[in-house]
Amino acid sequence: EVDETRFVETMKEQAEIGGTDGGGLHRLALSDEDAEIRAWFADQVSEAGLELTVDEFGNMFGYREGTDPDAGTILVGSHLDSQPYGGIYDGAMGVVAALELVRALNDEGIETRHPIEIVNWTNEEGSRFQPAMQGSGVWAGEHDIETEYAKTDADGEVFEEELERIGYKGDVPAEPQRDYDSYLELHIEQGPYLEENDADVGIVTGIVGFTWGAITFHGEADHSGPTPMHYRSDALVAAADVITQIRRIPDTLGERTVGTTGYIDAKPNSINIIPEEVTFTWGFRDPDEAVIEEARARVLAEAEATAEREGVNWEYEDRMWTDPVRFADGCVDAVELATEELGYDGMRIFSGAGHDATHTHKVMDTGMVFSVSEDGKSHSEDEYTSWDDCYKAANTLANAAYELATE
Amino acid sequence: EVDETRFVETMKEQAEIGGTDGGGLHRLALSDEDAEIRAWFADQVSEAGLELTVDEFGNMFGYREGTDPDAGTILVGSHLDSQPYGGIYDGAMGVVAALELVRALNDEGIETRHPIEIVNWTNEEGSRFQPAMQGSGVWAGEHDIETEYAKTDADGEVFEEELERIGYKGDVPAEPQRDYDSYLELHIEQGPYLEENDADVGIVTGIVGFTWGAITFHGEADHSGPTPMHYRSDALVAAADVITQIRRIPDTLGERTVGTTGYIDAKPNSINIIPEEVTFTWGFRDPDEAVIEEARARVLAEAEATAEREGVNWEYEDRMWTDPVRFADGCVDAVELATEELGYDGMRIFSGAGHDATHTHKVMDTGMVFSVSEDGKSHSEDEYTSWDDCYKAANTLANAAYELATE
Ligand SMILES: NC(=O)NCCC(=O)O
Ligand SMILES: NC(=O)NCCC(=O)O
Repeated sequence: EVDETRFVETMKEQAEIGGTDGGGLHRLALSDEDAEIRAWFADQVSEAGLELTVDEFGNMFGYREGTDPDAGTILVGSHLDSQPYGGIYDGAMGVVAALELVRALNDEGIETRHPIEIVNWTNEEGSRFQPAMQGSGVWAGEHDIETEYAKTDADGEVFEEELERIGYKGDVPAEPQRDYDSYLELHIEQGPYLEENDADVGIVTGIVGFTWGAITFHGEADHSGPTPMHYRSDALVAAADVITQIRRIPDTLGERTVGTTGYIDAKPNSINIIPEEVTFTWGFRDPDEAVIEEARARVLAEAEATAEREGVNWEYEDRMWTDPVRFADGCVDAVELATEELGYDGMRIFSGAGHDATHTHKVMDTGMVFSVSEDGKSHSEDEYTSWDDCYKAANTLANAAYELATE
Repeated sequence: EVDETRFVETMKEQAEIGGTDGGGLHRLALSDEDAEIRAWFADQVSEAGLELTVDEFGNMFGYREGTDPDAGTILVGSHLDSQPYGGIYDGAMGVVAALELVRALNDEGIETRHPIEIVNWTNEEGSRFQPAMQGSGVWAGEHDIETEYAKTDADGEVFEEELERIGYKGDVPAEPQRDYDSYLELHIEQGPYLEENDADVGIVTGIVGFTWGAITFHGEADHSGPTPMHYRSDALVAAADVITQIRRIPDTLGERTVGTTGYIDAKPNSINIIPEEVTFTWGFRDPDEAVIEEARARVLAEAEATAEREGVNWEYEDRMWTDPVRFADGCVDAVELATEELGYDGMRIFSGAGHDATHTHKVMDTGMVFSVSEDGKSHSEDEYTSWDDCYKAANTLANAAYELATE
């Protein structure tokens, strides 16, 4: 069993690095705050007697020997980066729970047949650099490392330079260095379903697929007064039309389909200039790959028709694609068994958020544990999970991991 | 007659201060570039033998004595600030033409019955700080100076502090210091009508009225994946709906009605966060006050209905209002007479852009001269007027001003 007091203390400790006045976390990937939390994590790993490695993409691992040289490693972890003004649980709790698992084993002097390794993945959030789950994606061979190194943020900063700047470009190749058995990840649900169903803990069965991209309309800057309406090529009017459609496309697709524009940037952004260039993003998710394909096709068709109607040019860029994932039965069952043994009310749930587990799934059997998210709120300073719910999820993770590691 | 070569040289000289790589001008009000062009203007004023005064709102005047102590002053000028990545003609040409008028009189040793004063108004553009035509508005008693001093730009910089920082908060009260007779201003048309009608010069008969304001929607930041569509309070979806209406409202109002959203800012602006707070502007213009009133009422009603439908809160702020203006016959006729005497093809035109003349009109008889704007393009680096068209307009201004000054 996880030490609840120490677990909560550790959660509070990490939340101070990049903590915001609003009680949230602002710890963007490869920022100074990310450097600080990584140094903190490295300390925790060493103090727990684990062997630290940092790979060339900044993914950080802490390794604990097993007793059987032939047994594959059980990997457990999540990510320490956050959204802009995000919450203190998202990601971080999965890393802290992995640490607590190791600490509990150390406390009790328990050896496991399988080695256990804990991990902090680079740039899970995908806010500053796209795609999300970038570190695990490179590691699992889903993305080409050079392409990802070259990615830039909205200010034009380059991923690789930022990784070097914060001192976390390691020497180890960003690919599996061991023989792995399974991956387990704890995360907050970030949606409302567990709470609505009065469940204690979520037994995650899979993850929705995504399409993300950005559309840019190129209009013509001109004066907002003497320029007659029919003379205009207004990039923002075009963008606004498509954004209203991104919100409406899901209504005609699946029950779980969601569509969002989270980002918009207009130039020159002056009250009396007709906007010349507007870039905005789309994001659609669904458990069914065909639905995501369809949503993407519809938004591009909409952009094309709008460009024609408003007399503007357009281009687009895909920023992320993941297929929906269904987890291995062995892992799902191990999580379910842990909830039963602990007397928790577990509920099977399909994740609407993306997780590093999407990529580890390509390399090994994978499963996840969700904690309840109050009001389903996340990617917000208002994100909240009671310490009791946090503890139940951490305990479930620890027991499921122990189960797999001693099998 | 204006010296064409010197006029063009002076135009090119001013265009170097804040000049952009794209051949435009980036000389925002109270920026370092504004400080530089003001110093340049002060030099030109002194070299022309004029008496320089700077008022407490930064408006700059250069005074040339008349021969009759009882004759009211003829004020001539425009503004030297620019839009972000705006054009080199807008505003600046009206100031340069005023300088050339004085230089031409000096060259010929001509004395005028009325004194002539030239002026560079503070923050005509209204891009960085709203309202537009702020300096002339304060000077004419249309705005309270303390309210205007307290205005902030998008980065929170305060007008008064910026004016002090650049060293142009003068001692003279920002109000008429003399007995004025008339005001004349040359400006590029910024619209397509003169070119479409093959006219050489515009004889401006009045200026449209404006309503400007900003709407902010307050939604709830949340995760763009696991948050079901019907759980969302998306501030950007609401904004997009209203922006599409701002573009459509003019279709059902006057023939000259225009409506624009030039500025938008979304927070936290992350691809996978539902936008929490979005601020965007409206601007409507028309020659008829009732039409502007109606457009403003409609956009506010639209915002209210949208807020209700999307489950977001909203607020708004008026940023500018001017009534439409019809110029004094005496000034309009003087401009027309000048075009006739010079053999130019003058055309009567109603201005769709705002000008400092809107405010001087409250203090004295006012008129304006427009030059042709190629393609009607303005507030853009692509703004263009041939030197020949510039010269014709400057010459018209000089002749009309001479006419009024010797009457
Ligand atoms: N779990 C999580 O918030 N991941 C970030 C990527 C996404 O799902 O938007
Ligand atoms: N003439 C001009 O561009 N003035 C700025 C204010 C406005 O009309 O938008």
